[in-house]
Amino acid sequence: MNHRTPAATVGVVGGGQLGRMMGEAAGPLGVELLVSDPTPDCPAAPVVRDQIVGDFDDYDAIRELAERADVLTFEIELADPDEMERVSEETDTPVHPDPDTLRTIQDKLVQNRALEAGDVPIPEFKRVDDERDLLAAGEELGWPLMLKAREGGYDGRGNRPVESPDDAAAAIEAIGGPALAEELIDFEREVAVMGVVGDDERRAYPVTETVHREEILRESVTPARTGESVRSRAREVAFEVLELLEGRGVYGIELFETREGEILVNEIAPRPHNSGHWTIEGAVCSQFEQHLRAVLGWPLGDTEARSPAVTANLLGDVAETQPAELAGTDAVLETAAASLHWYGKRDVRPLRKMGHTTLVDADSDRDTLLSRARELVDSVTFERPSR
Amino acid sequence: MNHRTPAATVGVVGGGQLGRMMGEAAGPLGVELLVSDPTPDCPAAPVVRDQIVGDFDDYDAIRELAERADVLTFEIELADPDEMERVSEETDTPVHPDPDTLRTIQDKLVQNRALEAGDVPIPEFKRVDDERDLLAAGEELGWPLMLKAREGGYDGRGNRPVESPDDAAAAIEAIGGPALAEELIDFEREVAVMGVVGDDERRAYPVTETVHREEILRESVTPARTGESVRSRAREVAFEVLELLEGRGVYGIELFETREGEILVNEIAPRPHNSGHWTIEGAVCSQFEQHLRAVLGWPLGDTEARSPAVTANLLGDVAETQPAELAGTDAVLETAAASLHWYGKRDVRPLRKMGHTTLVDADSDRDTLLSRARELVDSVTFERPSR
Repeated sequence: MNHRTPAATVGVVGGGQLGRMMGEAAGPLGVELLVSDPTPDCPAAPVVRDQIVGDFDDYDAIRELAERADVLTFEIELADPDEMERVSEETDTPVHPDPDTLRTIQDKLVQNRALEAGDVPIPEFKRVDDERDLLAAGEELGWPLMLKAREGGYDGRGNRPVESPDDAAAAIEAIGGPALAEELIDFEREVAVMGVVGDDERRAYPVTETVHREEILRESVTPARTGESVRSRAREVAFEVLELLEGRGVYGIELFETREGEILVNEIAPRPHNSGHWTIEGAVCSQFEQHLRAVLGWPLGDTEARSPAVTANLLGDVAETQPAELAGTDAVLETAAASLHWYGKRDVRPLRKMGHTTLVDADSDRDTLLSRARELVDSVTFERPSR
Repeated sequence: MNHRTPAATVGVVGGGQLGRMMGEAAGPLGVELLVSDPTPDCPAAPVVRDQIVGDFDDYDAIRELAERADVLTFEIELADPDEMERVSEETDTPVHPDPDTLRTIQDKLVQNRALEAGDVPIPEFKRVDDERDLLAAGEELGWPLMLKAREGGYDGRGNRPVESPDDAAAAIEAIGGPALAEELIDFEREVAVMGVVGDDERRAYPVTETVHREEILRESVTPARTGESVRSRAREVAFEVLELLEGRGVYGIELFETREGEILVNEIAPRPHNSGHWTIEGAVCSQFEQHLRAVLGWPLGDTEARSPAVTANLLGDVAETQPAELAGTDAVLETAAASLHWYGKRDVRPLRKMGHTTLVDADSDRDTLLSRARELVDSVTFERPSR
């Protein structure tokens, strides 16, 4: 292949932190990025060629992206598959991953049925449209169970554990729409595999261990601190998932490792994912560069880990929305093994993802790296000092 | 310290590949970059907040940079120290490194005198204003010798070996202005140290071996393939140089290792330098992130090497200027250890720096990495296929 200036232009629906980190990966490749996002001066804006202001389903914005780009992709599940498909047909600009894959993933019931049809191991689930369905699901799956909104859930939003039949009515009201009930998995740990579908091959990064609290990813540890056979099984399941997905790109595959060492698929993201942020420092080719290579149909990059890596999120530790100001970042900057990633958001909200830090150190074990990462994250705060 | 959005804004005089790579390093830190450059849509433009079009000595452009930035810096020696100093005084925006340091480095005679006064080991040199001076210098330093233009030289331009008194007239004419003659060092190898001056400390990266052909850097190998005592002496000399420099920032210090294992300073660059590109993949904190940290007065980053690293430049292998199109880049993208850096230049010129590739691999020795890098670079070409 030949490199010109620009080497290619990629249009991205969404310009949040994932779009920003795609932009950071695009520069070295000579690739230019355009993003569309409803927030003027979105996080990606300062590091990419241009932002088009428009909603994730705004036909005009997506059309402009497609007209100016060689390929269209998205960094958020709220991207509208119908509009992307329409614009792609009108402009002959390919979209990756396939809008059909996005449609499947947008509806967790459809997603689970597709995985089940493909013989991919998943928790048992039941469709739940109302309280009666939920009570019936509880009879069959047992209590407690996990109630998930079929659409619009992310970062744990739209997920609600239901303890007993007494909670059913409140849970249905909280979810507020079509849902599914899943058996609550008593897992040993959660792990994730970042996979990539290229033009004629599939690859996967090493298995990452993900630590959630309040349904939000807090830290990731790579390689996952579990046995080799479990890691090998997790990658096997990830490849089974990749085979079901249409269209090129990076996919985040979140998995449960059960107490029995079984692997079950929990969630799929059709894009780079928080559990793959470690790849920026931890692999030669990051998940963001990998996604660009994949959607462009370029050769895929290496997925090996260079050294153990721990990523810890910088989340909004505030009670209400306020201008973003994180105190204590010198501690992160002074830590030799640590890299700081600031997402460029103007406001901090409770538990909003504002940045992350990754620690890489070939000479440290993963427990030590994780303790150090936690200490660092605990040492910074968005809370205003009391006066 | 506190992180807001943006964490800080840095104004950079110059928007070539060094400005572009500074931009790529700024994103993760939450720092925004503004660059000024005479070429509209310069290499840095697509990855930074904004470009101001203006010459390197354009008062209005530098003034606008300073008004919009928290600190002013430069990525090219052609930046005008007088205008930067004036604007800094007018706007109260600090400039780093100090314009005085830039003035010293811009004139190689002044630079050599400063190094000599600071007891830093350098080749013997003589001021040369005309042919008579050059003949006299040859008598004293011996033939052949190296004639260097005092100002405006970079990438080997303005350097000319002079074989004998018979060449003197032609050499003086070719240099075409005030010059200095240096004894020609019969070196064992050339090495370089990237150093950084922070708010209250100085640091240096491991010693890099630099390979030049036709006076242009082709490859760098880190750590340098020389003895530990030579590497230690090179770092010692680099710290002596850093002590003489005023103002914060990254400095590239190019050195000769003589046949006797002595270290002599060859050139100093008051900015990130080609011999430090390996730090992007080879260190946790790259020279570009380091420069931003330094000029902002932030804590300095780690300078340790993560693994052996070899960088090879992608130079224009063309006979005349033509639109840039590099054929064969799939070979680079397919190499697991390799990262591609494309500078986003529209035209290729003979020997112009168009990009580079860095190979990192903890399991490979440096000779192997260097052979692989050379093979890769030899496999790509800007030359148009004959039809």
